[in-house]
Amino acid sequence: MATIPLGLYLWKRIHQCGIDHIFGVPGDFNLAYEDYAQNLLDHIYHVDGLEWVGNTNESVLRPLYKLNAAYATDGYARTSGNAGCFVTTHGVGELSALNGVAGSMTEQIKVIHVVGQTTRPMQKNNMMIHHSIGFNPDHQIFSKASQGFRVAAAELQSEEGATDEIDRVLRECFVQSKPVYIFFPLDLVDKPVSAKALEKPLNLYPDADQSKIDEAAKASLEALYASENPALYVDCLGQRHQAQDEIRELADKLSIPTYHSNMGKGVVDQDRPYFVGWYNGLVSPVGIQAVFEQSDLLLIVGNLPSDTNSGGFSRKLPPAKSCSIDSESVTVKGTNYPDIPIKAFLQAMLKALSQDKIPKPTLPKIPKQQPEADADSKTITQSWIWQRIADHLQPHDVLLGETGTAGFGLPDTINWPKDVTWITQTYYGSIGYATPAAFGSEIALRGVGRRKGIQGGRTVLVTGDGSLMLTVQELGNMIKHSCAPLVFIINNEGYTIERIIHGARQSYNDITPFNYGHLLPFFNMPAAEAKKNFHRATTKAELEEILAKDQLKSPKAMQVVEVVMEMLDVPWGLPTQLALRGEEAVKEMKEAGFKAPRRVGRA
Amino acid sequence: MATIPLGLYLWKRIHQCGIDHIFGVPGDFNLAYEDYAQNLLDHIYHVDGLEWVGNTNESVLRPLYKLNAAYATDGYARTSGNAGCFVTTHGVGELSALNGVAGSMTEQIKVIHVVGQTTRPMQKNNMMIHHSIGFNPDHQIFSKASQGFRVAAAELQSEEGATDEIDRVLRECFVQSKPVYIFFPLDLVDKPVSAKALEKPLNLYPDADQSKIDEAAKASLEALYASENPALYVDCLGQRHQAQDEIRELADKLSIPTYHSNMGKGVVDQDRPYFVGWYNGLVSPVGIQAVFEQSDLLLIVGNLPSDTNSGGFSRKLPPAKSCSIDSESVTVKGTNYPDIPIKAFLQAMLKALSQDKIPKPTLPKIPKQQPEADADSKTITQSWIWQRIADHLQPHDVLLGETGTAGFGLPDTINWPKDVTWITQTYYGSIGYATPAAFGSEIALRGVGRRKGIQGGRTVLVTGDGSLMLTVQELGNMIKHSCAPLVFIINNEGYTIERIIHGARQSYNDITPFNYGHLLPFFNMPAAEAKKNFHRATTKAELEEILAKDQLKSPKAMQVVEVVMEMLDVPWGLPTQLALRGEEAVKEMKEAGFKAPRRVGRA
Repeated sequence: MATIPLGLYLWKRIHQCGIDHIFGVPGDFNLAYEDYAQNLLDHIYHVDGLEWVGNTNESVLRPLYKLNAAYATDGYARTSGNAGCFVTTHGVGELSALNGVAGSMTEQIKVIHVVGQTTRPMQKNNMMIHHSIGFNPDHQIFSKASQGFRVAAAELQSEEGATDEIDRVLRECFVQSKPVYIFFPLDLVDKPVSAKALEKPLNLYPDADQSKIDEAAKASLEALYASENPALYVDCLGQRHQAQDEIRELADKLSIPTYHSNMGKGVVDQDRPYFVGWYNGLVSPVGIQAVFEQSDLLLIVGNLPSDTNSGGFSRKLPPAKSCSIDSESVTVKGTNYPDIPIKAFLQAMLKALSQDKIPKPTLPKIPKQQPEADADSKTITQSWIWQRIADHLQPHDVLLGETGTAGFGLPDTINWPKDVTWITQTYYGSIGYATPAAFGSEIALRGVGRRKGIQGGRTVLVTGDGSLMLTVQELGNMIKHSCAPLVFIINNEGYTIERIIHGARQSYNDITPFNYGHLLPFFNMPAAEAKKNFHRATTKAELEEILAKDQLKSPKAMQVVEVVMEMLDVPWGLPTQLALRGEEAVKEMKEAGFKAPRRVGRA
Repeated sequence: MATIPLGLYLWKRIHQCGIDHIFGVPGDFNLAYEDYAQNLLDHIYHVDGLEWVGNTNESVLRPLYKLNAAYATDGYARTSGNAGCFVTTHGVGELSALNGVAGSMTEQIKVIHVVGQTTRPMQKNNMMIHHSIGFNPDHQIFSKASQGFRVAAAELQSEEGATDEIDRVLRECFVQSKPVYIFFPLDLVDKPVSAKALEKPLNLYPDADQSKIDEAAKASLEALYASENPALYVDCLGQRHQAQDEIRELADKLSIPTYHSNMGKGVVDQDRPYFVGWYNGLVSPVGIQAVFEQSDLLLIVGNLPSDTNSGGFSRKLPPAKSCSIDSESVTVKGTNYPDIPIKAFLQAMLKALSQDKIPKPTLPKIPKQQPEADADSKTITQSWIWQRIADHLQPHDVLLGETGTAGFGLPDTINWPKDVTWITQTYYGSIGYATPAAFGSEIALRGVGRRKGIQGGRTVLVTGDGSLMLTVQELGNMIKHSCAPLVFIINNEGYTIERIIHGARQSYNDITPFNYGHLLPFFNMPAAEAKKNFHRATTKAELEEILAKDQLKSPKAMQVVEVVMEMLDVPWGLPTQLALRGEEAVKEMKEAGFKAPRRVGRA
């Protein structure tokens, strides 16, 4: 029987799942311990095409930081449209990363967290090995902490059956599109296992009964054919469950008025004639709500109804006129069809579609949005910046908007070029996420470009000064890895999103100021280069000049753009959503000096 | 009945426990939500003497980062010899901080983590509020994650009984010297509760049966009196359980040969005639082992026998000749006396002590340590740097050694002045801890100085370039808060401690290089000041010149000292401890080019 070490099996299997890079932080339990000559990380080098992330030279691997590794892996998974994988040591690494994994759980991102554990004898004897908890420590205590934030875990304790366990959890990661854990005691790394298992391809798609799928597709199409004024409403979960291509194809074939949610932005291209805009309940651009809510059938794909993705629960998606295609079931006007995987369903729907039966509603005209009161400002305003950044986008770009004003402002932008990936943590909302996620995105873009044969595609990160500082070191990592993202830093003196929620001028919403001119040299970019690649804009004219530069259009190195803005300026959506909390909230915002909420309703 | 809001009760009670500062990060669940006019943080302002940490002016509060807040709170608790408290929002803040709390759990540090939660109706209705997990979310899922890392939790769900619950967990925090949680739904913040409860002082000491304590003290003293060559061995847990004063008094009264562990360093002053040195099993300075192990009675106080605190389990503390005073029991030559709190026990022992019955063994002479082979090096070596830093210490300083070469090198130093607090995470070992802990220490020193009427006492942080980058932003926070620590950065191009464990020249142990000259200006220290407060040494002579400056002796602003050292140089203890793993480990270290381990044994 041909055998390979279990550690090598793991990496080869992960690479077979389409993962080309591994993120992680070194620690002595993913390195060797006791007399283990080979270790878990070293085996990565033995898989052709698999790289430890970082490589100053292309065959050598490089580590990240702990929580940041989880965020970067999440960003990598989103941009690649696949899964991401990272490794930590047990205990300290595992717990530091937990908040990132929890975000992947609730946003339904495929993340594989490999934990290098103490050896089985250490575990069995409850030895007080460093990173453990207390006297007579239970070494599994950390694994218990992540139970709520994963859908499967392989707690390896023997080489017997270990390959099946690894295969099982990798499959669950893809089928459920959520995080999984593989706990790997170090004394198992070099145990020989049969190499034969690698020859059987992993099935990464959910099992399903085709007749049930066809039945649900038939019911959905009948509802569509019977309607007069249908609309397509695209949220994020279809894209998560590997159905982005099918959604775009369906949208093109249907060519009915098409809308997106906050989180569903970019799933359907905005350059299509049938594209209408952003529906977000009471917090929608003027005119959208009226036309959306007049539809007599809503084809909803991948709905995720959190407060922040639904205009504070104000979206109207009445079951009686909805066909809701969710990740594991379809509900047609109140009748639920269970156990229907979304990708297989959309494929069945596309196959069964009769082009001539699709209604041809008039495409609605949305009135041009009224200019805001500060439209003529020479300084940079919230009413201007977001669309200006959107206008700078190019096809195949990845746009990351940090939780905060960027996350509120960017969904309200139009005219995106085709195939832009939009990344934000709208539901989980952990500030600091976007910067490491941009690193993951940059690494993934290299692979995506190779696979799709695409030239270009930039990572465009928009973050605030408050959020940036949480994970600022990841910019250094990107410089080291020759990444070339555009980094827009909204410098408005602190946590503006928290200011408008409460404590506009309380010092707990101030931050430590940064002098961004020193950022690139601090991370060791040579002085001349650093000077060229740092930009600062306090007026619209200055920002225009910066954006016109070639180095922004085709960056060869990281470009940092500091955008100086007013502390209490906010995108209109923010006071408008907060106003839904009631009169007290409106009064507090007004007294603090924030702009007024828009009048909401069908206007 | 006089009432106060429950939120105010919480802060007043915490302040009564001797806590003067609250650490935390703003987030919308510790700020107002819905129509709550007052919020949890605002109530802090209403307690005289309680400050949100940061204050550019002394009455205003300032936030930190998430995991860093937990680390800083831990450092605050250690330096103040009391407890620390920090606040986060539920979910994202709570999980980010979890690794810090786990460290406090295993190192037995008193930390109170207040979590601002969603309102009770949101929880009851499983609403998809941002930061929640999945559809129909269980809002308590985060609380489950921390169950293994706390000894008590108040999960408040009603104002009824809430003050008793708060009191109960505050007491447990002190009695067990471990973290506790207070989960506070936001709609309870302003609920009125009786103000009367505040008048009853909290009892923060464990209950105990005095007759049992006296019996154990008698047995211990009899064992001591019957010995001829006793020794006192001080580990860390007595200091954790509020018995530092008693330990110092006992040591002075006994005046028998006294040793410390890695973690117990500084608990007993080194300037005493009876002080011998550092006993760490096979990894002890030459000569120590022989004299320590000849003792016929070991009085062991607060033992914590983790691998990293015991020379890889090589300490010899035979029960037959030990009197082990642990945090909750005493064991005299194998006979266990349960339910004995350490502080009360030491008080009883001091009271019962007959000075004339104490044996007077000859104080051992430890041979002068042989100079290392590189002793004449002009560049800065691991065999020179640690004692040089120790020689720079002043009374009342707090010395923080980051996990890594600092954590291995600093325990092996002598001639400390009196009353130095030694902070390191020897058991938990989470790299990145020491920098935020230094911030906590700086804040606590202000209070300690006030209480003890002490002038001076600096925070001296020694970290490595690899660890520093994980939490570097905390230096910015310290600058903002006018903290004035000494920060020694060991620049040896990456994770040297991981290199010697495995992968000496593997790129996964490299780090993103920093250009430290830009550090202070990046964090907005004005250029002239920044230039004056940054120092860089590549030779011993250069470091001597820096250390001689007044601004290092009495710093008025943060002093950053970059210490450039060889990548593969290590303190002798590190290869010596790793050599215990066996021949393979010795061979790997030698081939990689590390210095040889010391011959271990009784030499």
